[in-house]
Amino acid sequence: MDINGKRLMEHINTLGKIGIGEDGRRIRLAASDTNRQGRDQVAAWMEEAGLQVVVDRIGNIFGIWETPENKGETPMMVGSHIDTVINAGQYDGCLGVLAGIELCQTLQEQGVRPKHPLVVGVFTNEEGVRYSPDMMGSLVYAGGLSCEEALASVGTDGTILGEELKRIGYGGTVEPGFLKPFAFLELHIEQGPIMDVEGYDIGAVENLQGIHWQQVTIKGAANHAGTTPTRLRHDAGLAAAKVNVFCRQMVEKSGGVCTIGTMDYQPNAVNVIPSEAKFTIDLRNPDKARLDGDEEILAAYLEQLAQEEGVEITAKRMTCFDPVPFDEGICQKVEKAAAARNLKCRRMVSGAGQDAQMMARICPTAMIFVPSVKGISHNPAEYTPDQACINGANVFLDVVREMIGA
Amino acid sequence: MDINGKRLMEHINTLGKIGIGEDGRRIRLAASDTNRQGRDQVAAWMEEAGLQVVVDRIGNIFGIWETPENKGETPMMVGSHIDTVINAGQYDGCLGVLAGIELCQTLQEQGVRPKHPLVVGVFTNEEGVRYSPDMMGSLVYAGGLSCEEALASVGTDGTILGEELKRIGYGGTVEPGFLKPFAFLELHIEQGPIMDVEGYDIGAVENLQGIHWQQVTIKGAANHAGTTPTRLRHDAGLAAAKVNVFCRQMVEKSGGVCTIGTMDYQPNAVNVIPSEAKFTIDLRNPDKARLDGDEEILAAYLEQLAQEEGVEITAKRMTCFDPVPFDEGICQKVEKAAAARNLKCRRMVSGAGQDAQMMARICPTAMIFVPSVKGISHNPAEYTPDQACINGANVFLDVVREMIGA
Repeated sequence: MDINGKRLMEHINTLGKIGIGEDGRRIRLAASDTNRQGRDQVAAWMEEAGLQVVVDRIGNIFGIWETPENKGETPMMVGSHIDTVINAGQYDGCLGVLAGIELCQTLQEQGVRPKHPLVVGVFTNEEGVRYSPDMMGSLVYAGGLSCEEALASVGTDGTILGEELKRIGYGGTVEPGFLKPFAFLELHIEQGPIMDVEGYDIGAVENLQGIHWQQVTIKGAANHAGTTPTRLRHDAGLAAAKVNVFCRQMVEKSGGVCTIGTMDYQPNAVNVIPSEAKFTIDLRNPDKARLDGDEEILAAYLEQLAQEEGVEITAKRMTCFDPVPFDEGICQKVEKAAAARNLKCRRMVSGAGQDAQMMARICPTAMIFVPSVKGISHNPAEYTPDQACINGANVFLDVVREMIGA
Repeated sequence: MDINGKRLMEHINTLGKIGIGEDGRRIRLAASDTNRQGRDQVAAWMEEAGLQVVVDRIGNIFGIWETPENKGETPMMVGSHIDTVINAGQYDGCLGVLAGIELCQTLQEQGVRPKHPLVVGVFTNEEGVRYSPDMMGSLVYAGGLSCEEALASVGTDGTILGEELKRIGYGGTVEPGFLKPFAFLELHIEQGPIMDVEGYDIGAVENLQGIHWQQVTIKGAANHAGTTPTRLRHDAGLAAAKVNVFCRQMVEKSGGVCTIGTMDYQPNAVNVIPSEAKFTIDLRNPDKARLDGDEEILAAYLEQLAQEEGVEITAKRMTCFDPVPFDEGICQKVEKAAAARNLKCRRMVSGAGQDAQMMARICPTAMIFVPSVKGISHNPAEYTPDQACINGANVFLDVVREMIGA
């Protein structure tokens, strides 16, 4: 049995057009007008596929397929998100939601009567661009954040999420967590280059990296670039540069990755030694002990560096998520299904945060990855070829069929 | 014979109040309204001191002291500037101008009749904040830039220097370079910490560092901070950090100084690998061969780094001034005068650019430094104690007396 690849790609391309503004950029921030348009379209497709549409209080949409025979059985859940970053691609999140609807439609068209209900979830505010934190809808659903606190979240534009959800017609009444699935499976693009570079079709995602974010501020002394001898300098910019070089060496040993993605100098003038360098450190590792270890090594280095350079260094914790190991049994099913379809499969670690990491708190969970060409994501050039999407959706179908007894 | 220290400090403090705005910041940018107020005050003091005031076409002001007996003899020139940076201190430039007027007044009050005329110059646009290049008035005076080109300079505010000079009443008719002095001497604050840290009163400035500025752009690839393994990264920010660390090591060998004072990342987001890092390199060395050598070493490193990190690096030359050796004979006179007054003197290199470096093109030139407390300059906290200013002005007096035969 195969999903209808043509219909899946039509849905992806149609949803992908929603939210493209006059400037050509695709923007469907959580609970915005364009996000409503996307939600309305997805809800319409759910109904076409014979799913019952339910919205919970945090705005998560669920398309529920249950039959008179399996009513009352524990459901399985699949899903992802359709909110986007600013100037986004069309695959991130959407592939998982639309393939979920597609597999329900395929199973129904084939007259399959599964032993368990199947639910397709569309989680609110996965990207976290307009409201914090990211992966909010799934976090609330899994009980990791109270719904009230989440609804009170103030957006970058000063709006309140709860009010915006009501305004766009997606402030539901059902309590998040109302369905307790026996498993959760998310199909997603890799958003990284590994599978494309190495030539894999399917990723069986066994782990999600832990993420530690820090904001570091180094305070030195602004002095004249010409008149201050090296021995009397307290160059905040040089100290920041040393941190960057050190972090790279550190993660090469620990197997993690580290990114200093932002950097701001004060006063940022050609002939003035920087008095301040403010930057973020994004540190990730699939192994919790190594991630925590790197953080300790880095903290010790910052202390030593402050001494050496005569600067003041403060580090403030921002985000902190432990690594999330996914369910081994589901991973094996993904590998088996890929092999049966002659698709090249490898175990993967998710480098990005995902709704699945939140759902893993309440049920056995895993993910299926399909390759991202050149690893590009969060960018209009994000691309996964049609056949790669369809391959992923077919493996997704096979695994779900086995799990729901269809 | 001593200068009148009380009068000198009153003049410094009075001029220092001109241009302080409602926000408390001292701003007398070249050819601005506040610059005119400062010029008017200085011209008035010149007249009080019996000097003939002449303005040349680039707006340089000269206070000429000649007697019937020395008329026709080659003059000596002293001087500096009174334009400021934004939020400036009150000593930079002004000390040299006002001490020049002060020593003419002292000599006249003492009934001295020198063998040579003495001229006090106030050069236009030394700071180069509003118009480019800096040290413009002295550069034009020394023949290094045509007056027409300089007058056509467009300011950061869209104004044209020539028009602004006329508007404030300082577009003179005399040709720059109309007087050919036999020597030039400039008294100035150090603007660096060396004399303050080491406890010196007087600096005999024997050299002015060469200055090379470059703008470097590193282009890498913006990728997801979580999903891109280290081996597939082209991190422009990390490459920029390596340049900073390399430059420090390089100048520690060559005896120069290096400052990466500006840094701008694109897209500057926490979880995106920087696709671009744009920064400036300010490289200085008192020795021309070493400065040129460092530039070659750096260029070779940038090439190697581009290979190693898989990034594209372009470097664009901005400013480039060779080191300027000052006159050994005048330096010895400064040392001798300091010793005679029991002042602790050391040879110095000027780390900053100065009007004296331009005047050195047309006559034997040197500078006298007095200490800057904590090395702070271009800042309201710029400070040189009264006694340190007076010490410098007295040594200045002694050297000028000897040179003009007074």
